[in-house]
Amino acid sequence: MKLATYKDGTRDGQLVVVSRDLSTAHYATGIATRMQQALDDWGFIAPQLQDLYETLNNGKARHAFPFDPALCMAPLPRAYQRLTGAAYANHATLLGDAEGGLVVHQASSDHLLGAHDHVVCANENLGVDFSAEMVVITDDVPAGASADAALEEVRLVMLSNATTLRQVAADVQNQPAVAFSPVAVTLDELGDAWDNGTVHLTVQVAWNGRKVGMCDAGTDMTYTFGQLLSHACKTRALRAGTLVSSGTISNAGFEKNGQTEWPKGYSCIAEKRAMETARDGQASTEYMRFADTVRIEAKGKDGQSVFGAIEQELAPLSA
Amino acid sequence: MKLATYKDGTRDGQLVVVSRDLSTAHYATGIATRMQQALDDWGFIAPQLQDLYETLNNGKARHAFPFDPALCMAPLPRAYQRLTGAAYANHATLLGDAEGGLVVHQASSDHLLGAHDHVVCANENLGVDFSAEMVVITDDVPAGASADAALEEVRLVMLSNATTLRQVAADVQNQPAVAFSPVAVTLDELGDAWDNGTVHLTVQVAWNGRKVGMCDAGTDMTYTFGQLLSHACKTRALRAGTLVSSGTISNAGFEKNGQTEWPKGYSCIAEKRAMETARDGQASTEYMRFADTVRIEAKGKDGQSVFGAIEQELAPLSA
Repeated sequence: MKLATYKDGTRDGQLVVVSRDLSTAHYATGIATRMQQALDDWGFIAPQLQDLYETLNNGKARHAFPFDPALCMAPLPRAYQRLTGAAYANHATLLGDAEGGLVVHQASSDHLLGAHDHVVCANENLGVDFSAEMVVITDDVPAGASADAALEEVRLVMLSNATTLRQVAADVQNQPAVAFSPVAVTLDELGDAWDNGTVHLTVQVAWNGRKVGMCDAGTDMTYTFGQLLSHACKTRALRAGTLVSSGTISNAGFEKNGQTEWPKGYSCIAEKRAMETARDGQASTEYMRFADTVRIEAKGKDGQSVFGAIEQELAPLSA
Repeated sequence: MKLATYKDGTRDGQLVVVSRDLSTAHYATGIATRMQQALDDWGFIAPQLQDLYETLNNGKARHAFPFDPALCMAPLPRAYQRLTGAAYANHATLLGDAEGGLVVHQASSDHLLGAHDHVVCANENLGVDFSAEMVVITDDVPAGASADAALEEVRLVMLSNATTLRQVAADVQNQPAVAFSPVAVTLDELGDAWDNGTVHLTVQVAWNGRKVGMCDAGTDMTYTFGQLLSHACKTRALRAGTLVSSGTISNAGFEKNGQTEWPKGYSCIAEKRAMETARDGQASTEYMRFADTVRIEAKGKDGQSVFGAIEQELAPLSA
């Protein structure tokens, strides 16, 4: 099923069930009002949401309304935990990240943006970059769970745009905003594309309307979501509503005429600059400016949008 | 006023108001059931809690009951954000921390332990250490707030024991558990002890019943809570219910007969080992073992416990 959270002026919004084709939606009121409620008691609440989802898909939901992604908060608007990995070795290699191996970091989760919310920055001269990422939301994961066991606790999948300030030290200051796709989907919605903790979907990234990335999120995922989760729960349990991000989706380049090429493009500007530096000795692409837009979407085999599109604009902090 | 959260089998517990002397308590039902609710709407809810607090202190609350710290969850049992600083330069110096300066890191907040909850570890051979810390809980803090402005948004103060695995790399794996004092208190409860973003109280630390630390949390706080908050909100707002920890409370040593002495003792074992290494060339104190206990408490000028005591035991993960 597909779930979203509609803006209602509160910090947590209203849980809605969205039809498979993203055309209609229905409030989940009577089942659960907030996404965290559903995650806290998934075994009890999910089947009821699934029933509503099927009724909605059959065109039989009595109070269905047209679904508008612009009215969405993040599917989970604030979370008790967000973890971010660096699952694509090609990204780490391109960015000259010394860490390289399997690492997972705590990230902020007090304000997760909706798909159409602006990215607000006080300063556009700090190397403002987008980053297309795949994210899972888990149920409770016991301490010490194996990759396979942890994977059993994945409940929802969504897309994310993690804005990063490339010229600010990696601290609490360099990730000012993170946004999510309009809907989060259960694993059955992914069909074959969900393969043992990887998501084999092409993630399209457009920057100011120009397609810059078409990376496959599954192919070159060096560490699966199971591995990321197992690493994160090594010494402590993770609790329901934990978000785990893949880090920037990135496909390996290949050699051609003695040069490396990356035909799939890029999911963040820093990678593009690293590619330019490798080829030309210096980066020519600049980072984002105010009013720049970024669009991130993934389509299934049937050509339909799986999660809806993230469509954000970089805006200045108003005085 | 003093607020606590009582265990009730749910993930968020029940908000209770606790008398100044920690002898009695009263459910806040009718005002707010959960601590996050109060933080989300502090201006409206806090005055009502304050009224109940005064009635309770006057012995006139109709359904008051004896307060039992063993029944407490963390005052905020799960939070949307926890940030941890390294506010005491002496701690960083002792531990040879290269960072040194003003840094703030994201920390886990999906499961915050109650004052009497066991610290559960699968393995006691990973350098299990306690750490006595001072923590504030904030209201919404706007992006770019100055230290003074950010300090205006501090709502509650409490003590914390952040368990750290010293032999595990600083990643999501080295902080398996963090516990909090039975009650969180508003700034007026601290009186003169609250001084411009520092808390001038002696924090007593006892390990297996032996007093090992009596550090003043105010004296040597290199970076005040205002500075930690201002640093954290430099590029983004912080939202209501954000926890900010001071990091290990630590007082500077002084020279005597050509050697440095630390008469106030230590708030974490790693410091003790660093002191031994400085004096003897090697550390002789071992880290915690299963069944070890740690007790952390701070008393006011009147000799009364301000936050109640953290009393934890290190326990093995049961099979």
